[in-house]
Amino acid sequence: MRAAVLRAGQMVYRDDVPEPVPGPGQVLVAVRSCGICGSDLHFVKHGGEVLALSAEGGLGGMGAGGTGVDLNRDVFMGHEFSAEVLYAGPGTQTHPPGTLVTSIPVLLSDKGVEPIVYSNSTVGGYAERMLLSAPLLLPIPDGLDPRYAALTEPMAVGLHAVNKSGIGPGEAALVLGCGPIGMAIIAALQTRNVETIVAADFSQKRRDLAIIMGAHQAVDPARTSPFDTVTPAVVFEAVGTPGIIDDVLRRARPGTRLVVVGVCMEPDTVHPFFAIAKEITVQFVLAYSPDEFAQSLRAIAEGDIDVGPLITAEVGLDEIGAAFDALADPEQHCKILVTP
Amino acid sequence: MRAAVLRAGQMVYRDDVPEPVPGPGQVLVAVRSCGICGSDLHFVKHGGEVLALSAEGGLGGMGAGGTGVDLNRDVFMGHEFSAEVLYAGPGTQTHPPGTLVTSIPVLLSDKGVEPIVYSNSTVGGYAERMLLSAPLLLPIPDGLDPRYAALTEPMAVGLHAVNKSGIGPGEAALVLGCGPIGMAIIAALQTRNVETIVAADFSQKRRDLAIIMGAHQAVDPARTSPFDTVTPAVVFEAVGTPGIIDDVLRRARPGTRLVVVGVCMEPDTVHPFFAIAKEITVQFVLAYSPDEFAQSLRAIAEGDIDVGPLITAEVGLDEIGAAFDALADPEQHCKILVTP
Repeated sequence: MRAAVLRAGQMVYRDDVPEPVPGPGQVLVAVRSCGICGSDLHFVKHGGEVLALSAEGGLGGMGAGGTGVDLNRDVFMGHEFSAEVLYAGPGTQTHPPGTLVTSIPVLLSDKGVEPIVYSNSTVGGYAERMLLSAPLLLPIPDGLDPRYAALTEPMAVGLHAVNKSGIGPGEAALVLGCGPIGMAIIAALQTRNVETIVAADFSQKRRDLAIIMGAHQAVDPARTSPFDTVTPAVVFEAVGTPGIIDDVLRRARPGTRLVVVGVCMEPDTVHPFFAIAKEITVQFVLAYSPDEFAQSLRAIAEGDIDVGPLITAEVGLDEIGAAFDALADPEQHCKILVTP
Repeated sequence: MRAAVLRAGQMVYRDDVPEPVPGPGQVLVAVRSCGICGSDLHFVKHGGEVLALSAEGGLGGMGAGGTGVDLNRDVFMGHEFSAEVLYAGPGTQTHPPGTLVTSIPVLLSDKGVEPIVYSNSTVGGYAERMLLSAPLLLPIPDGLDPRYAALTEPMAVGLHAVNKSGIGPGEAALVLGCGPIGMAIIAALQTRNVETIVAADFSQKRRDLAIIMGAHQAVDPARTSPFDTVTPAVVFEAVGTPGIIDDVLRRARPGTRLVVVGVCMEPDTVHPFFAIAKEITVQFVLAYSPDEFAQSLRAIAEGDIDVGPLITAEVGLDEIGAAFDALADPEQHCKILVTP
């Protein structure tokens, strides 16, 4: 079958990938849409470092970096997907063929629990077909565009970050970085009826999109510090580059809760003194719970979150390489969907 | 009157300090005991940096570094004290003369609220007499040695850190660093009936003291990582040197709550990736509430915390300089009290 794989630092199109065969408890599905995630872009460029850090931090089982991956062999990716049920493995009850589904990106097998993120063997969403786990399938509510359902995963990341922050409607939120995760945080904040949501991004297009997604103000940090615009109780860091955390510690008010969602893979320098003197809490967050994933799907289906504006392009499997390059320009794109 | 002051990076004895005169709401007290705090040692060596960082972080009002202090003039210090009431300022009701008291180190005046920490004008506990605020005075319960009452302040720092951690009796705690603040954390943890308290310090004497204060185990990090001894739910960082936070992020289990009490004044390098992948929370804490201060005094008075073993020496005002040097050796001392 057809798929796109990571090979020697490039996304490569293949039409000779062996057909996945569902085992007990597994379901073969036809991928309808798969979002390209920023972490995939990063893995293509810095996969070696990701794997090294994952091993160093003893994160083999975390699914944070997909240890055990051999970069000298083709790597399957794609973890933001919607799909159509084809058939189940032996002795496995599941939804009837043709049912549109999504799922947290985890494959259950006799080998155990494997995150569908980076793998030499388990096919991800950048393919015609893939395997999912029958117990984890969530039917896409009637009438919801499966392309929109593919954004359940990134929206769940935002919901999780907002849940972890414990923010209340009366508290002001500042979202630093308006990539797809920043957008997901903004969307989750507006479903929480947070009254003051300020977004910050260098890109005009991203700032406009932030307003559409529910931000009340969008600031260009090149012109003015967002901390001059708002005094946030909670700051969401969705950039993931060195220096941001320290800048927040320096500018934030006493008692600020900083939620770090941006995945900074490099060493970062901070001044603990600022954080101590202001009793700042730094909550690092990752991913989401299955329940938060299901909540996000409901929020999209019920129109509480309109993910439509985030989708800036749709490409085929043979165009993924070009799409990865295009995503480098924030003025051009936010979320690109792969439709096999 | 007699006092010890910071002058040109040295603690200097003076016998010509003008007698403080209590204003309205203030009380003149005779200092009975004043503990030497690690932050005082640090300020003597690195006062300039502390003031610069405080200004940079906009911490003028935080009392974190005592901005507005001129290091070219004598600086009064000493914020861990017990004292005896002499007389109150005009129109001020207070406890009768001779009453033994302690107080949070804050002086209320018509100029506002001033932390008693580092000041060119407001005399601290390294003096024969000082001013306190009538509304803030706490009588020392009958029979409690005022030397012990002088440890109320550092014990309150430990109680505050433990309160902020939200630790439960069934959760394991790891305390990194067994200086006075580490000891205060251990003491607060044992009053909370935490079942597993592991302490870590390079000093044998400090480890022995940690056991006396309530730790169940004390490990030498030079020999073995404390994370090989215990899998803590909460880690208290009471060292305050660069590298410790990152080491915790690297070794801690997923979901760890890291409470940073040690005041690291230098830039520090961390790998956010480890914290993100494990969803670690880093809570930076400072000081305590007036209620926590009062609780600590009660805990000491009622024998829930025995601070006696922490006091390793008592010196006069003219011996403070030597005491500051002696405290550099953890094998020799923990808490030195100044008794004017």
